[in-house]
Amino acid sequence: MATSLDSQLTVTAPVNLSAYDSRAKTGFSGKKDDAADDLAEMGEELSDLQEKLFAGGRAETSSARVLVVLQGMDTSGKGGIIRHVAGLVDPQGLAITSFKKPTPAELKHDFLWRVERVLPEPGMIGVFDRSHYEDVLIGRVRQLASAEEIERRYTAINEFEQSFTDSGGVIIKCFLHITADDQKERLAARLDDPSKHWKYNTGDLDERMLWDDYQQAYTLALERCSTEHAPWHIVPSGRKWYRNWAVAALLLEQLRALDLQWPDADFSVEAEQARLATM
Amino acid sequence: MATSLDSQLTVTAPVNLSAYDSRAKTGFSGKKDDAADDLAEMGEELSDLQEKLFAGGRAETSSARVLVVLQGMDTSGKGGIIRHVAGLVDPQGLAITSFKKPTPAELKHDFLWRVERVLPEPGMIGVFDRSHYEDVLIGRVRQLASAEEIERRYTAINEFEQSFTDSGGVIIKCFLHITADDQKERLAARLDDPSKHWKYNTGDLDERMLWDDYQQAYTLALERCSTEHAPWHIVPSGRKWYRNWAVAALLLEQLRALDLQWPDADFSVEAEQARLATM
Repeated sequence: MATSLDSQLTVTAPVNLSAYDSRAKTGFSGKKDDAADDLAEMGEELSDLQEKLFAGGRAETSSARVLVVLQGMDTSGKGGIIRHVAGLVDPQGLAITSFKKPTPAELKHDFLWRVERVLPEPGMIGVFDRSHYEDVLIGRVRQLASAEEIERRYTAINEFEQSFTDSGGVIIKCFLHITADDQKERLAARLDDPSKHWKYNTGDLDERMLWDDYQQAYTLALERCSTEHAPWHIVPSGRKWYRNWAVAALLLEQLRALDLQWPDADFSVEAEQARLATM
Repeated sequence: MATSLDSQLTVTAPVNLSAYDSRAKTGFSGKKDDAADDLAEMGEELSDLQEKLFAGGRAETSSARVLVVLQGMDTSGKGGIIRHVAGLVDPQGLAITSFKKPTPAELKHDFLWRVERVLPEPGMIGVFDRSHYEDVLIGRVRQLASAEEIERRYTAINEFEQSFTDSGGVIIKCFLHITADDQKERLAARLDDPSKHWKYNTGDLDERMLWDDYQQAYTLALERCSTEHAPWHIVPSGRKWYRNWAVAALLLEQLRALDLQWPDADFSVEAEQARLATM
């Protein structure tokens, strides 16, 4: 890629979500079938780089670690990315967290408390299915906190993310952009398919009623929290295959940029070879 | 498969490990390349069944869950199985635990305490890279506990596993069998390859010195803890491709036997369709 996909999808304020085409194929010139081949090929390189990342963590020679944050409306494809993109690498190197409604115990702490506890360790690729951003999304839309508190959180998030990246972390934040029509089609497909009923919640339609409020809350979160150290990306997600391709490409770009090296042996290779030969 | 692989690899006492061929291809009639095709094909069915298992857990309609226990000497392929077999399914449905030397906090509790805390929840496939069996393996070889305590543990393990299977769990215990020569070859290959040095510990050779003691400890564990509800399997692991194929086949057999069903909708599909149509 001549121009990085990262730079093409990075958010620059002001954000006007309705101007984004959910079916765009930014940075990709081929057809759907080419994307599958491309994804498989990227998968091999991702898998190799992930092993190098993991090795550095295990050998304690590197503090590098990666966090992929997935946010988007219901049916935008957070689960699909975990299956099809995260699924390309060794599951041993993944730390996946799915954030639900906070428990009473979690609510007793600051909103970042439960997030800090599950940040990826050195060598790991963390994936957040929803994240601390829920606290300025549903938090704002449903008025779960005061306006002042929501305001404070944007700054707190930026500082929190900065401290993660200062200590060897890389954050890849992906907003999976779909339109209300895309969602309608996907919810209808879920309702038509008994093998997908378990994914459906009647609460999904209650949230859908608040579509415009959510778009507004996303717009603010994208504008306020797209920073140099942790930019937001708007990933057109109306086409599932493009969405998967794009997130894999973003991850690959970041892993390549880390310039990962195999850790040096912390023992004498010759001495061990000699010892093994006698056994 | 006419005869299940499960029945072919299941341990029946008395065990004589030196009589097992580590390069056997029990239950597989093809060649190495066929195994790769077979594995990919099994991968699709495993992935489908895993999703059904996961759906039942998420919808709380089923208490089914699976635990794969991987034990074997260094280089026997525990990590390889996680990458190549567990890696075939959605990582969201996996709970992988790698058991290290117990921490001081863990040592304050009974040996099963840290294991109970990480058993897979309904819907999940748990994978143990080493397990509670270490407490009768290294525990026995290095005399980390008294003979009476080791003796007590076999029974405690059987009861613990029974309680797991009584509550909807399925346990697939795999002893990855290699010979001392297989291990020598693999350790030598690790030493020859700088990209594998991070996997090597000088302590590996100290354990290798105790090879016969470990084989004896494994023999006892296999004999004492291969029960009807949680049988041990001896997986010939001198060929990596067969080892991966065999563990995938064991997992597939167990998932098929669960006769998994998609959960029924806990809402009125028609009412939701009507509501969605208006939005």
